[in-house]
Amino acid sequence: MHRHFDEQIQDLLEKLVRMGRLAEAMIQTAMRVLIERNESLADEVYRKEKEVNELQIEVDDRAVKLTAMQQPVAADVRFLFMASRMATELERIGDQAVNICQNAHHVLKAASLKPLVDMPVMGEIAEKMVRDGLQALLKKDCALANTVLKEEQKVDAYRNQIFRVLLTYMMADPGTIERALALILISRNLERVGDHATNIAEEVIYLVEGREVRHRRESESRMGQ
Amino acid sequence: MHRHFDEQIQDLLEKLVRMGRLAEAMIQTAMRVLIERNESLADEVYRKEKEVNELQIEVDDRAVKLTAMQQPVAADVRFLFMASRMATELERIGDQAVNICQNAHHVLKAASLKPLVDMPVMGEIAEKMVRDGLQALLKKDCALANTVLKEEQKVDAYRNQIFRVLLTYMMADPGTIERALALILISRNLERVGDHATNIAEEVIYLVEGREVRHRRESESRMGQ
Repeated sequence: MHRHFDEQIQDLLEKLVRMGRLAEAMIQTAMRVLIERNESLADEVYRKEKEVNELQIEVDDRAVKLTAMQQPVAADVRFLFMASRMATELERIGDQAVNICQNAHHVLKAASLKPLVDMPVMGEIAEKMVRDGLQALLKKDCALANTVLKEEQKVDAYRNQIFRVLLTYMMADPGTIERALALILISRNLERVGDHATNIAEEVIYLVEGREVRHRRESESRMGQ
Repeated sequence: MHRHFDEQIQDLLEKLVRMGRLAEAMIQTAMRVLIERNESLADEVYRKEKEVNELQIEVDDRAVKLTAMQQPVAADVRFLFMASRMATELERIGDQAVNICQNAHHVLKAASLKPLVDMPVMGEIAEKMVRDGLQALLKKDCALANTVLKEEQKVDAYRNQIFRVLLTYMMADPGTIERALALILISRNLERVGDHATNIAEEVIYLVEGREVRHRRESESRMGQ
């Protein structure tokens, strides 16, 4: 019975990792839509969104059933609650990939405004945060989880820089406003990916060390979104 | 013992309702900062954010402890998982109130761009969605939860209208771009409040009817953020 329970916990963990890989791939593909100016890639994002949504419901259902039927000890209960919340974070990363595709549509309607310099880098940082957050969970690696938390400052810096640069374009030529706005919104989408990855990293730290790190960030730096 | 458990469930529910009231009040106050051009009100929002954050940790801790120590039946397990996820939604509504205050700061730096017509209405709709979502939980009222889901279309419509109107201002006078952008971001903050309220309403429907309504919205209407 107990061995069976451990296997089911492992199975849940693998589902979360599969969700994470899908979410990461979705962000990557969504960024390719923008960077390669290739909207046909967006279909792959929409297809994967369905898969991620189904996995979320599966993870939740299993976590509740395991808890109710196996009467796990406190540490396992904590893991199962975390699995449910983490599935939500991963599903929302997928949502952001969908939003990036939709905002990219507005960017691609007109000629390229400027070479995208910061945006691809910001996208890679956000993807890496998701990947590292999941890896930290898999390896129960708090040091890696902490690097994810630190990346958030980079994401904020890119967000602000992208905003300022696009502002100068808009000021100089109102004809660029719609495209520039869509790009600003994409940078906000990436910022939210980073937020979700940070939430995941915080869950890992809480799970492994039992130390509450949520809300630490919020009081440290106040940045509007 | 069993009676004691019911009392603790009730206590958890009351904590969620308290979080909901705080979150709703935070949105209301943040919108007053913007509408009344009174930044001194923002302190109240920051104070309440701390309270909401503490309540979230309390709700999570209690939900895990109750589950581990009382070995509840499946329906109660489902409620306890939901309580934990719902606390997260409410805490993030509070975050949006903070973001509104910060974006309002950029609006208030310069003279009023235009009389705010749609924004106060959009704010009231978002607040009402939060209030109704919590009320639906308290009364186990799926009909009320469904009205929250329907409000999302209104929020989307306001979001689009605010965007279009502000775009015309920016096009006509680049000097308005910074203020207009901050207002656009506030409308996105309110949209996210609506999203969180919708998530709460979906949790209520899932809890009461056991019917999964998540991801229904996403496939119905695809709107970028």
